Amino acid sequence: MSKDIYIGILGFGNIGSYFYKTVKKNLKKIYLKTGKRPIIRYISVKSPNKKRKIKIPRSQLIKDPMRLVHDKKINIIVEVCGGSDGIAKKIIFAGLKNKKNVITANKALIAKHGNKLAELAEKNNVNFEYEAAVAGGIPIIKSIKEGLIANKIIKVYGILNGTTNYILSNMEKYGKNFSQVLLIAKKKGYAESDPKSDLNGTDSASKIKILSSIAFNIKISKNKILQEGIEKVNHVDLVHAKNLGYKIKLLAISEIINNKLLERVHPCLVLKNSYIANINGILNAVVVDGFPVGKAVLQGEGAGPGPTTSSLISDLCSIIKGDVKFPFGSSYLRRKNIKRFDFYKRSCSSYLRIELKDLPGVLSSITKIFSKNKISIKNLIQVPDKENNKASIIIITHKNLEKRYKNLLKNLSKNKYVLKKPIFIRVENL
Amino acid sequence: MSKDIYIGILGFGNIGSYFYKTVKKNLKKIYLKTGKRPIIRYISVKSPNKKRKIKIPRSQLIKDPMRLVHDKKINIIVEVCGGSDGIAKKIIFAGLKNKKNVITANKALIAKHGNKLAELAEKNNVNFEYEAAVAGGIPIIKSIKEGLIANKIIKVYGILNGTTNYILSNMEKYGKNFSQVLLIAKKKGYAESDPKSDLNGTDSASKIKILSSIAFNIKISKNKILQEGIEKVNHVDLVHAKNLGYKIKLLAISEIINNKLLERVHPCLVLKNSYIANINGILNAVVVDGFPVGKAVLQGEGAGPGPTTSSLISDLCSIIKGDVKFPFGSSYLRRKNIKRFDFYKRSCSSYLRIELKDLPGVLSSITKIFSKNKISIKNLIQVPDKENNKASIIIITHKNLEKRYKNLLKNLSKNKYVLKKPIFIRVENL
Repeated sequence: MSKDIYIGILGFGNIGSYFYKTVKKNLKKIYLKTGKRPIIRYISVKSPNKKRKIKIPRSQLIKDPMRLVHDKKINIIVEVCGGSDGIAKKIIFAGLKNKKNVITANKALIAKHGNKLAELAEKNNVNFEYEAAVAGGIPIIKSIKEGLIANKIIKVYGILNGTTNYILSNMEKYGKNFSQVLLIAKKKGYAESDPKSDLNGTDSASKIKILSSIAFNIKISKNKILQEGIEKVNHVDLVHAKNLGYKIKLLAISEIINNKLLERVHPCLVLKNSYIANINGILNAVVVDGFPVGKAVLQGEGAGPGPTTSSLISDLCSIIKGDVKFPFGSSYLRRKNIKRFDFYKRSCSSYLRIELKDLPGVLSSITKIFSKNKISIKNLIQVPDKENNKASIIIITHKNLEKRYKNLLKNLSKNKYVLKKPIFIRVENL
Repeated sequence: MSKDIYIGILGFGNIGSYFYKTVKKNLKKIYLKTGKRPIIRYISVKSPNKKRKIKIPRSQLIKDPMRLVHDKKINIIVEVCGGSDGIAKKIIFAGLKNKKNVITANKALIAKHGNKLAELAEKNNVNFEYEAAVAGGIPIIKSIKEGLIANKIIKVYGILNGTTNYILSNMEKYGKNFSQVLLIAKKKGYAESDPKSDLNGTDSASKIKILSSIAFNIKISKNKILQEGIEKVNHVDLVHAKNLGYKIKLLAISEIINNKLLERVHPCLVLKNSYIANINGILNAVVVDGFPVGKAVLQGEGAGPGPTTSSLISDLCSIIKGDVKFPFGSSYLRRKNIKRFDFYKRSCSSYLRIELKDLPGVLSSITKIFSKNKISIKNLIQVPDKENNKASIIIITHKNLEKRYKNLLKNLSKNKYVLKKPIFIRVENL
């Protein structure tokens, strides 16, 4: 049997080139641990003739990605070009059909097509692995699939997006507003030039859907989930939250309630001395709450070429060693569809910031709306802004149903004293 | 091929019986994920006729543990009786020689005999797995061996003993002294009736030696390592530490310095807002500092039947699936011996508490000893105890060499004003 195993790479940006360098540098190490030497055969790029920072034989660069699929020697395709559809999708589907093992860091693609890809991989008796797709270098996929294999997991949650965590942490730390910090994040390479899918929660939503699937042994849900981003969070909210004993974090949360699935991504007020409140900057953290293990926590850098490559190579070694059985821990035949928990039946306590005209009778008019909706108030802080003839009211409510909050917000928005759509952030007890 | 795989258990205490119940309960789940049903064939116990809380057929209980080794059907032996030598050692060695796979939670045994056991397992082409031996339910062994396989790890450290962490946390939280909290810990089952090996750091030392071995790809060191327990930590030290901005934690730390290995277990002052300072109670936490991944952190419950069983079953599934290659990540032929870093050449800042006679000239006499040893003082707090004609001096030093501290402590102990051997705790910057 040959000691070499051949790899094709699709995409050669930051991640692809870092992966290439690291594989070459660790050839001996990988050989000692797996018994095989991973040889990079081809790299498919848009412009093979473009000048590159990294020295690479011209013969390795190819323009037609289908050559990765049809090359007889290539055993593993590593997809690092991104996008839930387009060329990534085409090559991964074609590759699996042609009995190539596939490694990807592409959460959007897995969240969308993961069920079909798992089936295809199993039917063709090849591997489809994606440790790098969730939480960068943190070995969360392997930990749930293997390290915690015997557990009945009831909840999995965490900070799964480094960009938004960097922005919220730095807004709080330096008292800057959203757009200022976003600019800094872009300069430092912590936010992409188009950071929309990070900021609006789409990226976290893809990741939590993947985690749900392996944690609960279910098909990746096609549900439209509750998804709110951080764009609406103002730095005054971080200040008010702090004064009330909280921090604001964008969390992705998935849990089983009465045998139904509740997945959600939204900003949360979390107690400032809680574990998750103290995950700052670009860090990611995932908490797996299971039985018998209790709460297992994994934390580390959630993105960037280094951590991503660490996970890509972990998948590479697992495939070489023949470790992998099912992409999502058990066969696609055994992973069930599960009903969605009706979100409006969930209850939580919440934070509201309401901007108002500063007129007599305002407070009474506003609190009346709360009482009409049967929502009781735990804390209320009135912040005057005499100069602009305005005032803000900050409210923490007692626990209540989502459907009541929905109605409350509708009523508030219609109130004649209310100047803007109120800010509504859920309090999460973790 | 048979769908059943037969297991023999050695020992049937808390862990053994919990493991037994959990395997039976998860039979279907394990079958779906691995393709095999784990059948527990025999359990070797001291007194097969003893009444037990758990219902178990008498025919499964055997007295002679060698039957686990010689039974033709048994494929995997799970050792949960403990002890670095004695029956555990005998059965594991005999089992591996007779081509049985072995799973154990026995850190003392691995720290002592791990190198030979790995060689034996490899030569007989069977597995020797021990996820449960370090940090209970936290999948730290798998994470380092597989999830972080491509990384160059430079340091691994953490809180590896739940008993001592529980005691220190609760001494601090409730202002109680060591022996009071130890009593509570025993009542709650967080400390064994003879907790010596937990308290004096032996347990943590075994665990950090195992982690060093897989993190740095080296043989388990036979070095006598720096090992100090928590017995000397008084609750006044926790109070002083707090006032100075620190907490005291028992850490196990292993790192490579100039291609040499430095392993140590001792109480540390850590900044109170650092990650590790906020791991309280029976929790364990491990930080792996590597390249390219950065700092990866794993945290969870470090002991108890639940978390331990979670890891035992993870090993069981890996063996059934045929995932495992080398017990310590690479072959015993490739793991090197590594020189020991001379501990006295290490420098750190430190905390000292010195009890003195309250007489004129004392402070000058003490500070003179510091200056003679070229150790400069960063903070000094004098705490009078007029009633007893005593005083304490609390000192935080600037960084200095261990060998200088050694001499300092010798000089201090000889000083006529000093009433007791001074308390010396290192400050760790993490």
